[in-house]
Amino acid sequence: MTALRIDVVNGPNANLYGLDPSGPYGSLTLADIGARCEAKAAGFGATLRFRQSNHEGVLIDWIQAARTEADGVIINAASLSYGSIGLLDALSALGKPAFQVHVSNVFKREKLRHFSPLSAAVTGCIIGAGPMGYELAIEALVAQLRGEV
Amino acid sequence: MTALRIDVVNGPNANLYGLDPSGPYGSLTLADIGARCEAKAAGFGATLRFRQSNHEGVLIDWIQAARTEADGVIINAASLSYGSIGLLDALSALGKPAFQVHVSNVFKREKLRHFSPLSAAVTGCIIGAGPMGYELAIEALVAQLRGEV
Amino acid sequence: MTALRIDVVNGPNANLYGLDPSGPYGSLTLADIGARCEAKAAGFGATLRFRQSNHEGVLIDWIQAARTEADGVIINAASLSYGSIGLLDALSALGKPAFQVHVSNVFKREKLRHFSPLSAAVTGCIIGAGPMGYELAIEALVAQLRGEV
Amino acid sequence: MTALRIDVVNGPNANLYGLDPSGPYGSLTLADIGARCEAKAAGFGATLRFRQSNHEGVLIDWIQAARTEADGVIINAASLSYGSIGLLDALSALGKPAFQVHVSNVFKREKLRHFSPLSAAVTGCIIGAGPMGYELAIEALVAQLRGEV
Amino acid sequence: MTALRIDVVNGPNANLYGLDPSGPYGSLTLADIGARCEAKAAGFGATLRFRQSNHEGVLIDWIQAARTEADGVIINAASLSYGSIGLLDALSALGKPAFQVHVSNVFKREKLRHFSPLSAAVTGCIIGAGPMGYELAIEALVAQLRGEV
Amino acid sequence: MTALRIDVVNGPNANLYGLDPSGPYGSLTLADIGARCEAKAAGFGATLRFRQSNHEGVLIDWIQAARTEADGVIINAASLSYGSIGLLDALSALGKPAFQVHVSNVFKREKLRHFSPLSAAVTGCIIGAGPMGYELAIEALVAQLRGEV
Amino acid sequence: MTALRIDVVNGPNANLYGLDPSGPYGSLTLADIGARCEAKAAGFGATLRFRQSNHEGVLIDWIQAARTEADGVIINAASLSYGSIGLLDALSALGKPAFQVHVSNVFKREKLRHFSPLSAAVTGCIIGAGPMGYELAIEALVAQLRGEV
Amino acid sequence: MTALRIDVVNGPNANLYGLDPSGPYGSLTLADIGARCEAKAAGFGATLRFRQSNHEGVLIDWIQAARTEADGVIINAASLSYGSIGLLDALSALGKPAFQVHVSNVFKREKLRHFSPLSAAVTGCIIGAGPMGYELAIEALVAQLRGEV
Amino acid sequence: MTALRIDVVNGPNANLYGLDPSGPYGSLTLADIGARCEAKAAGFGATLRFRQSNHEGVLIDWIQAARTEADGVIINAASLSYGSIGLLDALSALGKPAFQVHVSNVFKREKLRHFSPLSAAVTGCIIGAGPMGYELAIEALVAQLRGEV
Amino acid sequence: MTALRIDVVNGPNANLYGLDPSGPYGSLTLADIGARCEAKAAGFGATLRFRQSNHEGVLIDWIQAARTEADGVIINAASLSYGSIGLLDALSALGKPAFQVHVSNVFKREKLRHFSPLSAAVTGCIIGAGPMGYELAIEALVAQLRGEV
Amino acid sequence: MTALRIDVVNGPNANLYGLDPSGPYGSLTLADIGARCEAKAAGFGATLRFRQSNHEGVLIDWIQAARTEADGVIINAASLSYGSIGLLDALSALGKPAFQVHVSNVFKREKLRHFSPLSAAVTGCIIGAGPMGYELAIEALVAQLRGEV
Amino acid sequence: MTALRIDVVNGPNANLYGLDPSGPYGSLTLADIGARCEAKAAGFGATLRFRQSNHEGVLIDWIQAARTEADGVIINAASLSYGSIGLLDALSALGKPAFQVHVSNVFKREKLRHFSPLSAAVTGCIIGAGPMGYELAIEALVAQLRGEV
Repeated sequence: MTALRIDVVNGPNANLYGLDPSGPYGSLTLADIGARCEAKAAGFGATLRFRQSNHEGVLIDWIQAARTEADGVIINAASLSYGSIGLLDALSALGKPAFQVHVSNVFKREKLRHFSPLSAAVTGCIIGAGPMGYELAIEALVAQLRGEV
Repeated sequence: MTALRIDVVNGPNANLYGLDPSGPYGSLTLADIGARCEAKAAGFGATLRFRQSNHEGVLIDWIQAARTEADGVIINAASLSYGSIGLLDALSALGKPAFQVHVSNVFKREKLRHFSPLSAAVTGCIIGAGPMGYELAIEALVAQLRGEV
Repeated sequence: MTALRIDVVNGPNANLYGLDPSGPYGSLTLADIGARCEAKAAGFGATLRFRQSNHEGVLIDWIQAARTEADGVIINAASLSYGSIGLLDALSALGKPAFQVHVSNVFKREKLRHFSPLSAAVTGCIIGAGPMGYELAIEALVAQLRGEV
Repeated sequence: MTALRIDVVNGPNANLYGLDPSGPYGSLTLADIGARCEAKAAGFGATLRFRQSNHEGVLIDWIQAARTEADGVIINAASLSYGSIGLLDALSALGKPAFQVHVSNVFKREKLRHFSPLSAAVTGCIIGAGPMGYELAIEALVAQLRGEV
Repeated sequence: MTALRIDVVNGPNANLYGLDPSGPYGSLTLADIGARCEAKAAGFGATLRFRQSNHEGVLIDWIQAARTEADGVIINAASLSYGSIGLLDALSALGKPAFQVHVSNVFKREKLRHFSPLSAAVTGCIIGAGPMGYELAIEALVAQLRGEV
Repeated sequence: MTALRIDVVNGPNANLYGLDPSGPYGSLTLADIGARCEAKAAGFGATLRFRQSNHEGVLIDWIQAARTEADGVIINAASLSYGSIGLLDALSALGKPAFQVHVSNVFKREKLRHFSPLSAAVTGCIIGAGPMGYELAIEALVAQLRGEV
Repeated sequence: MTALRIDVVNGPNANLYGLDPSGPYGSLTLADIGARCEAKAAGFGATLRFRQSNHEGVLIDWIQAARTEADGVIINAASLSYGSIGLLDALSALGKPAFQVHVSNVFKREKLRHFSPLSAAVTGCIIGAGPMGYELAIEALVAQLRGEV
Repeated sequence: MTALRIDVVNGPNANLYGLDPSGPYGSLTLADIGARCEAKAAGFGATLRFRQSNHEGVLIDWIQAARTEADGVIINAASLSYGSIGLLDALSALGKPAFQVHVSNVFKREKLRHFSPLSAAVTGCIIGAGPMGYELAIEALVAQLRGEV
Repeated sequence: MTALRIDVVNGPNANLYGLDPSGPYGSLTLADIGARCEAKAAGFGATLRFRQSNHEGVLIDWIQAARTEADGVIINAASLSYGSIGLLDALSALGKPAFQVHVSNVFKREKLRHFSPLSAAVTGCIIGAGPMGYELAIEALVAQLRGEV
Repeated sequence: MTALRIDVVNGPNANLYGLDPSGPYGSLTLADIGARCEAKAAGFGATLRFRQSNHEGVLIDWIQAARTEADGVIINAASLSYGSIGLLDALSALGKPAFQVHVSNVFKREKLRHFSPLSAAVTGCIIGAGPMGYELAIEALVAQLRGEV
Repeated sequence: MTALRIDVVNGPNANLYGLDPSGPYGSLTLADIGARCEAKAAGFGATLRFRQSNHEGVLIDWIQAARTEADGVIINAASLSYGSIGLLDALSALGKPAFQVHVSNVFKREKLRHFSPLSAAVTGCIIGAGPMGYELAIEALVAQLRGEV
Repeated sequence: MTALRIDVVNGPNANLYGLDPSGPYGSLTLADIGARCEAKAAGFGATLRFRQSNHEGVLIDWIQAARTEADGVIINAASLSYGSIGLLDALSALGKPAFQVHVSNVFKREKLRHFSPLSAAVTGCIIGAGPMGYELAIEALVAQLRGEV
């Protein structure tokens, strides 16, 4: 049995996580979170690509690549969660399980962050669980891929 | 160190889960899910109350009781997710961590299920992960209570 | 051939029908209406349970019970017609024919009574025919159950 | 005592009923429905005119004619249900009981079919009872005219 | 002349008043408020029933009971202020003066608390006067009942 | 201890109160109401200025003056309740308790009278209590100023 | 100098004017109004065609005909005022002065009668002046045509 | 028989009419229009007060004064047409016929000029007839006052 | 192989095309367009009926007739594009390919022309290509019918 | 070359600037700001009138006066920014450059302050630059008047 | 006469066309479509650049380049059709004919695909004609460029 | 004292400024504007980076870089002003003063340009002052940085 391959895709400004501990994203940097995710994935014998871009086009490229290079996707689209039809279309064409992560509880923030069209194109969403949300998403994704849900 | 106490509160019609496997909630009954949750909680050395009611008033009573009888709450308010200000107020007065679970991915269903006012009064939400969502919520809640997030 | 079993479920304040003849519901009491319904059902050789509650939870319980104890449902959800997702979910899970009755013509009243989400979960609606609406609903339900439509 | 006169008025495309049995209107043709209605009316000793037109103007003419030539009206305005102020005005000026019929359950269809301004100008509505809806409307109308409601 | 009878009806979570002094409801418990109300009523020679429930159905029962058992009603429907058509209908059928109380100034809170459909079915509203609002409502109600307005 | 100073400010057309007894404002003239208010205030040992203007600018001037010349304000902004940001700003800058009075129950009138932006800038609102509403407001204001709430 | 030619075009149900004196249109029949209009036009030495139809298509035909057969148009589109883009387009293509008449004050009626897209395609509107509105429109139209405005 | 008294009330910026002939109001000054109105009124043996103010408060004063000093009112509220509840209330309390004039066809201008709440409080409206609109309004008002409509 | 039969159906005011070259529809008359269409169809060996009506009812009749008398439909519903549910229903029942043509680019015109409910019931739309749009539609329709898309 | 004349017009409550340093307008009084503006204008050899009123009518008078008495206008309409069509009309008729100033960043405040209809009638807007915004506006206005933009 | 130069610009995810034949875009790959387009263009003696990018910025660059390097543009903006003001601005600044292509009939899909702001900045749109839509657009563009429309 | 460092960031299509003098942006090219800005900054002894990109991702990179490489930011986000949450987030995380520039008066253009979510994340906005707007923004930014506001 080959190892599961998981692609974690992070959107605009996620590279600032942890730089401003007083903000809504806590004090872990994105690198810290990536390291945690790799540990979590390793626990399931899965490999993990953890990437970030400020470019919608690059994020679409990565989702498209996951069609052949990964078994499932975890996406924190950040600001692109709220309006990117391009990511919606890429996820709709993915044909594989995907989970969406919001680090903060978006429902406690401005109204424009309350609805993400992308959510209809993923398996499920983990919202407001902080950086741990990525780990929960890996767990959910692996269970989904192993048919253990 | 005393065991953590977790209250899981289920709303209207959740008692039908598993009775119609062709529906959006899968084939596990609520009793099955409760058993899984107890196992999960036990793994953390936590005790768990797993209850369901079709009455908003009873659900409010249970959230109020959790103010003194539990360390955290997991709520799947079901149909009351989308309009119960009473549950919103009870959760706002809880003063403890709480996670909201939607078994199905509500964003793939009718528009009226896309927004839950309760979400602003909980720590976070697990959506669309199926019955496993309860277990992820327990994990998140325990981490929150242990300050391990 | 066993007799058809029909459950008639009435919502909040329907127990006031007939007490204020100047209001929009005429001078028949709910008991009068129940008696008429029983006569109508008897004419079809059907048995009938005619109940009322001011509690959404009780009404949900009754709809759930009808899954095994009745062949069809007639619901006048009264004030809960306009916002109860719990009744919508219970009716959606019923798996049997159901008719919705509004005694008054809701389209002549305030705008908030013009749309009932429940209507999408029933077979059809009888609106504005007064207390006779229940009898027409019984007729429609029996025809539906007998495949005579 | 003279026989009651009932005018049944059908709107655009109702003449296609039954031609596409896979559609939302069943397999009875409009002629079949008309025959059933005549039988039903005859049972009440009433005469019946059953007509259809694709022209709003003709339908208005017929409602206007009913002011002097009929005792009550049954209208299935079809597509004109959702926007014809002309039919609303004609029905408002009718001065006699009228019932509106929707053959299909409009609340299960597109949103634009969920509200009919005409409904405020009739006595009541029979929705989703299939072709039998006309017969229920005749019953309701006769009861209304005989003061037996 | 018999003593006036006043029913004070409190909705969901009002039983938490005073338990969290940092919240929007001050430090008086509901029992404290009830005691003040009784003193106020006694000053007018009136008797007072002061009750609370988290159940919409129970609140409707109490409003219905007031039709024969009280001379006027004071209602703080709390979270049910913003959406209960059932309470609206019960109040509309009351046939007696009623005053609505909001302890906090709802217009300083979230938008969903800015409009209460119930307000159209009562005589008037006292908003934002704190627990004293109940006492002002008793004064207003007594004046109304004595024709002293 | 100096006497409390209360400014009562009335908006456009309030000077017509009582002139048309069939209207929504009863038969007391504004002068009558002013006299009642003075009596009420005197009972608390307070002085009272009772003024009316049809000019938004004058009303703003008076609210501004109250910053130094009064201890609290009662405002019935009448038609300016529903849209005057100028009065909202003046009240926001007042820095003292204020109560808003609507003589009629605005929730029984046209929709445009259901929301007043000013309400967020006052301590509380007395609505629908008729002319007595001013007296209740004085009571509430005095209690607020004396810290007796 | 040739006589001015005026076309007066009346929409659906205008032929019922005067038949129900208790309604919003008074007791003059459409024939009465037509006679008054002819007298008025004659006073200006103008000829007048006064026509009515319940068919949008016929009304469009008449507006189109006025492009060559009349010098100006007066239109009371009745129920078609509120939604006929066909009449809007025909009037936009008229290339001649036109006045719109509403016999009743539409702003005192249901909201759906408050806006008429046609109004942007005519010179002006006479609203709520009763049957006299036609005569005022003739006056305005003649002045417009004579350049006397 | 005493002469009819007509008050014509003009709102903000109407004093600029005619100063910018390229604008939507033509080349007649307000003084010119007033002179025309006086001539028109004189033709009916009526007296006329023709006034303008940029102050809402002054306009309200004038409408209030007309309760006793005039037999009818013509109002061109100009920019205050679109939002002055104060003028709406003053006109509602007038108790006499009133006509509203818009010089330009507001339906050809920005959307914010398409609806005037004042319109519901007057007898009728003359829109887009240019300065002649005042004269038509005088005619309509006199007919109304003489019962000649 | 029999010749393909194409029905081209034109709505209200399309008969004015070309009469006002300064308008949005160019200088070709509808007859010119019809001639071009016939030439285009002939090039494909197809026969063509090219018709226009100002009556929605007639247009519905023609779409219904095409169910048996044509192989595909091209419709320029003109003003009825924006609101005719009757044409929507007729097209939905057509069971054959259809293309919608807008001669002008509706997205450069008023907002009310930006959405046509009919578009969901046709195969595709050609918008803003001028009279040539009909020819492109014929091409698309023939390809569709020949399975050459 | 004559000196440029600039009129600075301030709206309701601007006279409170600086009185409450904790508010959104800083600690400069309006007099301070006026003095700064005069200095700035003097630097350009321009004369300046700096005025404030709480009356919309007075502000309109001043804008009208600027038609002949000034070369350009700077307006901080304060609360009237958000709804005064009268100021919009006066500015539209000004025929000279004008700049709008918001002292605070309105986009950080309540939603009702996010859009000002007046903005479409001025040359440009300076928002959120504090009292310095007036000076920037003078600079922009002078450049505009000198054709140096 | 030089050959016409046509730029075809494809947006995000269009590179997936044909990869999922069960989806809404058929079985032709984008390369297949490009080949067809080149053949079509060659038939007109035109040269064609056929490009795709997932980056809005790149697409804007290409539209800007077409200002000097092409005679006309065909754009299928895909997901960017529904919200890219950047593409709207680039197309508005193009100064040359452009046609927009939607491969699928967007009006049969989710509501968010029903309106594209870009459509107002192009000559016309071809919607729902499948891959053939590009060829029709080339035809329309060439006719436009040759003045043969 | 080190020189202030200012980053000026320009969004999509700003590189076209000046190329079409008849458009809303005047005849200065972006290079011209950059040169002016440099001169202005030099006058304050500040250094300036003046950059433009059509890519949202690049603009976000630049704002992020300004966190460490600049003392303040001036942003003309152009088309991305109206919907880029990514830029909003980057500006919110900047932690330094920033001013937003719109060259044209957006309030005179289409509605979609009237509101920019970015505005809430900057210090202030300069709108409609043409290319000079950048210079005013530099002035405002320097004053802000020097505490001279």
